Amino acid sequence: MPQGKPATVPEDGLTTRARRNAPLLAVHTGAGKGKSTAAFGMALRAWNQGFSVAVFQFVKSAKWKVGEEAAFGQLGRLHEEQGVGGAVEWHKMGAGWSWSRKHGNEDDHAVAAADGWAEIARRLAEERHDFYVLDEFTYPLKWGWIDVDEVIEALTQRPGTQHVVITGREAPQKLLDAADLVTEMTKVKHPMDAGRKGQKGIEW
Amino acid sequence: MPQGKPATVPEDGLTTRARRNAPLLAVHTGAGKGKSTAAFGMALRAWNQGFSVAVFQFVKSAKWKVGEEAAFGQLGRLHEEQGVGGAVEWHKMGAGWSWSRKHGNEDDHAVAAADGWAEIARRLAEERHDFYVLDEFTYPLKWGWIDVDEVIEALTQRPGTQHVVITGREAPQKLLDAADLVTEMTKVKHPMDAGRKGQKGIEW
Repeated sequence: MPQGKPATVPEDGLTTRARRNAPLLAVHTGAGKGKSTAAFGMALRAWNQGFSVAVFQFVKSAKWKVGEEAAFGQLGRLHEEQGVGGAVEWHKMGAGWSWSRKHGNEDDHAVAAADGWAEIARRLAEERHDFYVLDEFTYPLKWGWIDVDEVIEALTQRPGTQHVVITGREAPQKLLDAADLVTEMTKVKHPMDAGRKGQKGIEW
Repeated sequence: MPQGKPATVPEDGLTTRARRNAPLLAVHTGAGKGKSTAAFGMALRAWNQGFSVAVFQFVKSAKWKVGEEAAFGQLGRLHEEQGVGGAVEWHKMGAGWSWSRKHGNEDDHAVAAADGWAEIARRLAEERHDFYVLDEFTYPLKWGWIDVDEVIEALTQRPGTQHVVITGREAPQKLLDAADLVTEMTKVKHPMDAGRKGQKGIEW
């Protein structure tokens, strides 16, 4: 049960209102489940506030997130047709980024990941969205496909009040240091350990 | 990145299909953020599969979940009006359970919590919903307002393929033992530690 009471009030000269609108950088890491799911739950809440939401999936095969993509597609449609909630964009590396000329033909995952990040950096600079989910973004960082320092700089210097949530195992320490909110999801018990299969409505 | 491959295949005589439809009991516990948010993210996925979703909030003041409630209200409306996704019900103890004759007037939280559980047990027995979120349900268990053994029995003996997700800190060990999936959310860093306030679109 969240209490909503800060432990200390910083002497930063900011009003409560300014602090309430401070842009959040959140990281969901750890080997447990729920990293992406909680990010999409946050995106749902942001959508409800009328925030424009953009999801970028940094995985080659995105088959496990089709449920979220479809649900957010419906939410985006609600926004377009009835003005409810915020706008929704969903981009995935797996099928080739939608804005890329190499659409559907990016065999080099490292190049594709770097392209994805370059686009996100552009969007952050021009304040295109209110709420970004960079799903599984820790992997291209870990594999050296995207420069961590460049990411930290773009994130910490992003203008306005854009919120960013990054998910994935083994987030680099520099990213954790730069984040406002870090949550580690730990696997305590998992049904696949007991030989259970992925399930409709649960895993996708 | 989920792999979808069970570590072992159990010799339980079940088909893959039967195993794919096995009812899941999940617990999100720990002191970190994302327990409820991940549960609502799962509910979003379930909704997208056409599952009927029911949320039961075991908190007196539910002000921090209004964003989720409003968003799921929109999803329920999509189902009713356009046949998209599954049905949605949202019940909260804070305002008095919607089905209770003592609506809005339950001063005794222990009685209200027990009423809530009794209704859930009835619904489980009659397979009313496909996907249940019992939000912050660990607290009435911890405080002895609801009998843990009775809960375990009703959950483990529930008929059909009803999925149940329970959230809250300090889940009783018996509940963890009975669960198929347990994830612990650990707080690594939280903005309120640095004196930041709860934020629109982030916390609600």
